[in-house]
Amino acid sequence: MSEGSVSDKTVARLSLYRRLLSDLLNQGIRNVYSHQLASAAGVTAAQVRRDMMAVGYSGTPVRGYSVPDLIESIGNLLDSAQAQSAALAGLGNLGRAITAYFAGRRPKLAIVAAFDNDPYKVGRVINEVECFHINDLGPIVEQRNIRVAILTVPASEAQQVADMLVRAGVKGVLNFAPVRLRVPPDVYVENMDMAVCLEKVAFFARQGRTTAEAPS
Amino acid sequence: MSEGSVSDKTVARLSLYRRLLSDLLNQGIRNVYSHQLASAAGVTAAQVRRDMMAVGYSGTPVRGYSVPDLIESIGNLLDSAQAQSAALAGLGNLGRAITAYFAGRRPKLAIVAAFDNDPYKVGRVINEVECFHINDLGPIVEQRNIRVAILTVPASEAQQVADMLVRAGVKGVLNFAPVRLRVPPDVYVENMDMAVCLEKVAFFARQGRTTAEAPS
Repeated sequence: MSEGSVSDKTVARLSLYRRLLSDLLNQGIRNVYSHQLASAAGVTAAQVRRDMMAVGYSGTPVRGYSVPDLIESIGNLLDSAQAQSAALAGLGNLGRAITAYFAGRRPKLAIVAAFDNDPYKVGRVINEVECFHINDLGPIVEQRNIRVAILTVPASEAQQVADMLVRAGVKGVLNFAPVRLRVPPDVYVENMDMAVCLEKVAFFARQGRTTAEAPS
Repeated sequence: MSEGSVSDKTVARLSLYRRLLSDLLNQGIRNVYSHQLASAAGVTAAQVRRDMMAVGYSGTPVRGYSVPDLIESIGNLLDSAQAQSAALAGLGNLGRAITAYFAGRRPKLAIVAAFDNDPYKVGRVINEVECFHINDLGPIVEQRNIRVAILTVPASEAQQVADMLVRAGVKGVLNFAPVRLRVPPDVYVENMDMAVCLEKVAFFARQGRTTAEAPS
């Protein structure tokens, strides 16, 4: 499948499968059936089989999928040939939590620079990430060819910082600020809206509603 | 509309509308047209009008919607009559960021207890939330009638802590651990999967893909 034809829900499922498969590999498990992977991911086995055909991998009926081969096939689609660099804007509690979460995890996708306006943070290395002043965001993002950004600034500053990121060449933003960003059409924004998600959970907790399905 | 017939995407949109409307009210704006709200939320005006009918509110063609009335109508659907209490399990960087984020924001939905196994945190009040030992989770969640939980423990502990929460009566979990939880069918789980979301952003940043639409 060409990259261009993949939906964002498919990408999310493939990313999830890969993490589940890596967990299996760490436990020494080298073969898995589609129904086992489906159960772990919260989707149907038919969905898993469709997704596997999409990445160009097919298992054998007897032994299921090879876990290492499948991890590699998914990586061929999800990962870029060259490593991608990400920037993080806003090193408050949430920004620090995110740098700690991602530190050293993904050789192909690493946070290489962080930005804040707190003089105490600027110039320090926090969770393996160098922190620069927010005023230097433009030149540093351009020089380092950074195309991916994580936005963890306060809501009141989010649009302004997003504008700086986009001007510097960023094409994808993971946005934690409770604001809908205005960006050009070639920039992809994924909103992580914690308040909205908590309200959903609280609403359905009152109703005894069945767990939401994974993206399908 | 009865609560039972509302989809999770509708709830997410209503929660977002309410936040956008509160921002308008804070700016002194008391009337809004459906197309303005739609633009801010990243959905179509027709979608906004359908959602407004669903909450039982209709605007007038001349002045649009009344912002305070609409906030109240959405609250009547989203909020419970009594305030809901939430627990947070895992006071690491992410857990602390989340307690700071929600502190004092929502009188109807507050984090009232946090749990950790770090003796330095237990017994302290962190971001207005009292921290208890994780071993006391069951009795405290039961006594305080807590039905909503935020899970920010490491992946390796997530299922075990989720089991404790469910046994104590929790019916909704906002899960930040990179694990698919096994829970009974009457427990609602919303997964906030930061690694999956960052991989999506990185993938589409390479393609110049248009920003994803808000849930519709």
